[in-house]
Amino acid sequence: MLSNRHRTASNARRARTRPPAPRRATVHADTVSGVRPPAITTTQLHPLTDREQNQRLYAYEQRVRSAFDAIVPTLKRVEAIQQKDGFEPMAQAIVQQSLGFELPNETLAEAMAGGFDMRKLFAWAMFETYQRFSDDFFSGNNLIDDQTFQSFLIDCGFHTMDVSPCADGRLAHVISYVLRLPYREVRRKSYAGAMFDIENSVEKWTETEFLRFREGRPNHADEATRYLKTVVYHFSSSDPDHQGCAAHGSDTNKAAQAGLDRLHAFQQAVENTFCCGASIDLLLIGLDTDTDTIRVHVSAEDGTIDLRNYIDSSYVYLETMNMNAAQAASVLEARVRDHSEGATEGMIKLVSRLITNNLSQLDYVNEFNNRRYADIGHAERFIGAGIGFEEIQLRNLTYFAYMNTVEEATADLDVGVKIFTGLNVTHGLPIPVVIRFDYHGHVPGARDRAEANCKRVADALRARYSELAQDGLLHTLLAIRDCAAGETIEVLESSVFAKSIAGAH
Amino acid sequence: MLSNRHRTASNARRARTRPPAPRRATVHADTVSGVRPPAITTTQLHPLTDREQNQRLYAYEQRVRSAFDAIVPTLKRVEAIQQKDGFEPMAQAIVQQSLGFELPNETLAEAMAGGFDMRKLFAWAMFETYQRFSDDFFSGNNLIDDQTFQSFLIDCGFHTMDVSPCADGRLAHVISYVLRLPYREVRRKSYAGAMFDIENSVEKWTETEFLRFREGRPNHADEATRYLKTVVYHFSSSDPDHQGCAAHGSDTNKAAQAGLDRLHAFQQAVENTFCCGASIDLLLIGLDTDTDTIRVHVSAEDGTIDLRNYIDSSYVYLETMNMNAAQAASVLEARVRDHSEGATEGMIKLVSRLITNNLSQLDYVNEFNNRRYADIGHAERFIGAGIGFEEIQLRNLTYFAYMNTVEEATADLDVGVKIFTGLNVTHGLPIPVVIRFDYHGHVPGARDRAEANCKRVADALRARYSELAQDGLLHTLLAIRDCAAGETIEVLESSVFAKSIAGAH
Repeated sequence: MLSNRHRTASNARRARTRPPAPRRATVHADTVSGVRPPAITTTQLHPLTDREQNQRLYAYEQRVRSAFDAIVPTLKRVEAIQQKDGFEPMAQAIVQQSLGFELPNETLAEAMAGGFDMRKLFAWAMFETYQRFSDDFFSGNNLIDDQTFQSFLIDCGFHTMDVSPCADGRLAHVISYVLRLPYREVRRKSYAGAMFDIENSVEKWTETEFLRFREGRPNHADEATRYLKTVVYHFSSSDPDHQGCAAHGSDTNKAAQAGLDRLHAFQQAVENTFCCGASIDLLLIGLDTDTDTIRVHVSAEDGTIDLRNYIDSSYVYLETMNMNAAQAASVLEARVRDHSEGATEGMIKLVSRLITNNLSQLDYVNEFNNRRYADIGHAERFIGAGIGFEEIQLRNLTYFAYMNTVEEATADLDVGVKIFTGLNVTHGLPIPVVIRFDYHGHVPGARDRAEANCKRVADALRARYSELAQDGLLHTLLAIRDCAAGETIEVLESSVFAKSIAGAH
Repeated sequence: MLSNRHRTASNARRARTRPPAPRRATVHADTVSGVRPPAITTTQLHPLTDREQNQRLYAYEQRVRSAFDAIVPTLKRVEAIQQKDGFEPMAQAIVQQSLGFELPNETLAEAMAGGFDMRKLFAWAMFETYQRFSDDFFSGNNLIDDQTFQSFLIDCGFHTMDVSPCADGRLAHVISYVLRLPYREVRRKSYAGAMFDIENSVEKWTETEFLRFREGRPNHADEATRYLKTVVYHFSSSDPDHQGCAAHGSDTNKAAQAGLDRLHAFQQAVENTFCCGASIDLLLIGLDTDTDTIRVHVSAEDGTIDLRNYIDSSYVYLETMNMNAAQAASVLEARVRDHSEGATEGMIKLVSRLITNNLSQLDYVNEFNNRRYADIGHAERFIGAGIGFEEIQLRNLTYFAYMNTVEEATADLDVGVKIFTGLNVTHGLPIPVVIRFDYHGHVPGARDRAEANCKRVADALRARYSELAQDGLLHTLLAIRDCAAGETIEVLESSVFAKSIAGAH
């Protein structure tokens, strides 16, 4: 691999043979962390921004977020009138108007008898809101309607794009918002610190290549395309020492290095397990969770990635913001090329598209979040534990704990419970945990196994956090989903008002 | 599927057109259970028995079993002399002579100080013996040296034979002894009640077919062979209501039906998940754990299996025992054919080979176990928990609990602990648990993950059975193995005399 010194010299040599680019756009940090990118202060949109898409994505985010945000104020209003005459119809009217559904009558009866249980009602309303949001998503929300992506990807030399972001809720929108990719065409599997499971990835690779050989899906095995594995690590430009990746001690260099190591381990696993030139392609992306700026470390054709060499979307934004669209696209591609020594043309094309897509997101954050998210720290609404959650495409809504067993996921779950102790428990509110297992309905017995998994995990969770559970400070919703059929979720049971939930759907 | 009545009539019609066979050899039970097969009382070996193989397998079994069996008497001898002068050298001489290794000096010092700890010493000696036995196995024991099996299997139309026996220790010898197959050429994965994991099996099928497409291993994908999935359920002819399969309430019909249902579920999973005629072939075998007689339910080409139709190896034995080898082989194949309506010629060939192989085992049990095992119930020496244990090819040595997590395997582990409470704890001896995870050394990080798995499972076991562990009645040995390199096991640590074990190897 070229040293940074060598690479910089090489870039300098090339720079002499072409018109000099504005320095601020090609200069990048010497190390991954440490330099805060320039703020984008314009009120005008970037020429490559998809204004209509931004509006649509914002409307969706607002709709979902406001539904969750309305829960506490609404319940407080109900609590305030619990001693009044005509409480029950008044309360139902308030809840119906603000949240779009009614509370179970038994809870209002309890409240009138002086037993207003905010914990139970909060959990119930959270789960009800979650289910409505989930149903809405699976009833046909495309978010990014890009039907050309699959063929574009193949043209770039990749038949599959598999992305492992960190499980942190601040990255949950990375596919649909930050990178603006159609979620159905990209495999996403999140892990704490983006430390994805090598064995599981080799299995997925095997299945993918098998389908190419056997069924020509998505393309035939004799086409020279590869499986592209992408890791998204993250950092905070505002507060790098505290709001970065918890799994890597908020150390950006460590997060990047660990992501790179894991990518190479996966590549080596494929190469060592199979013969005849079996391999994968790699991509490493860093995300500033305060601004959604990305830095892309482009891999050379031989898989080498230099952590100190990356293209930063905010620099590209600033350099190209006053150009027309065609000029901007051309300069953008040139900047990607500057940082892509040894990369294939396909990789350059793909990275150019990702950077382009991200420019829209930079404007999104500028326009709707005043350039920098107000919630730069954790502000998730619930924990999602299990396998699934395709519908979670929004930032800071869900703390993910992808898992089969509590036994294997204790570290992730403990972190989640700690975060929610700060967010909810200290305010007297319970931790809502959605336990979810997706299954393939065409496999006999798969639904029963998913149901058994839900119940096993719920039991293990209650055993591990028994004090919280006993105090009504940890509530669970159990749901499964036939992901092969693309259906909505099926709620099995809940620790709050089991009958009401089960009866309602 | 033909009804039994119809099939019997059809057999009767065919019988008219050929010389009548002795009735006792073709008659079979109307249902799977209920009829005790005839006892084989001859002292002469069957003409198709492999006498030399029997002798070799017996020598191996004796060597291993006597090493385990010597532990308790030897330790009792040591205990008896603990107050004598010159105790330490005398004790070491006794142990060295009987067990082939020395006890850790610290334990003898403890004994001399009046603290002879039989529990600790028993666990230590068990683990030491297990490790010696395991090392011996992986240093080159073939047991069945059949280098033609792979090509024979392909000739029969199967590129892989995948066998799921019940995890009961009385079936642990099914590959090398009962069916006399080379263990390296057959995939074995045991599950309680033979209830194998469908999702895991589909993954294995995918990997197998992928290797055929990509690397032509073991044969090319365009050769019309199939993956053969075999289930071995079991029953006890001596005490069918108590010594059958615990997972199915010692009900032979239930055990057979559940095995068949699982086979069909796997077949359907493959057919529904992949297109273009993807499927597997099926075989269902019942094992009488008292005598090692097998009953083979041959599947028709379309996958149908009639539970009431099977060929019983003890009937074939009796019909052919007085023939010469050529005659016996010919009659055996004819009997297989009688029970194989709709089966392929390859399937008939394979089943004929399995029945032939099993004749040697019937003589083995006759000769060395007086026709019927003395230990018809559980008599395992230790629990094997985790992934691996290829070296366990002997009957009633190990209670298997194949598993990733204690959380998922609680049912199996509880049964194992219950069995060993009867076998060991009631006699003041601890339950020895070998926790083992095999890994693929060419996959980066795999060894570390195997080690972490061992420790996680050991912690979870100690937590679940904390009283036993605290009383020194549950001891663990943690071991991993690079199965890709075919190496011996690597012992990580033990709950007894951690330093001695770790230092010794």
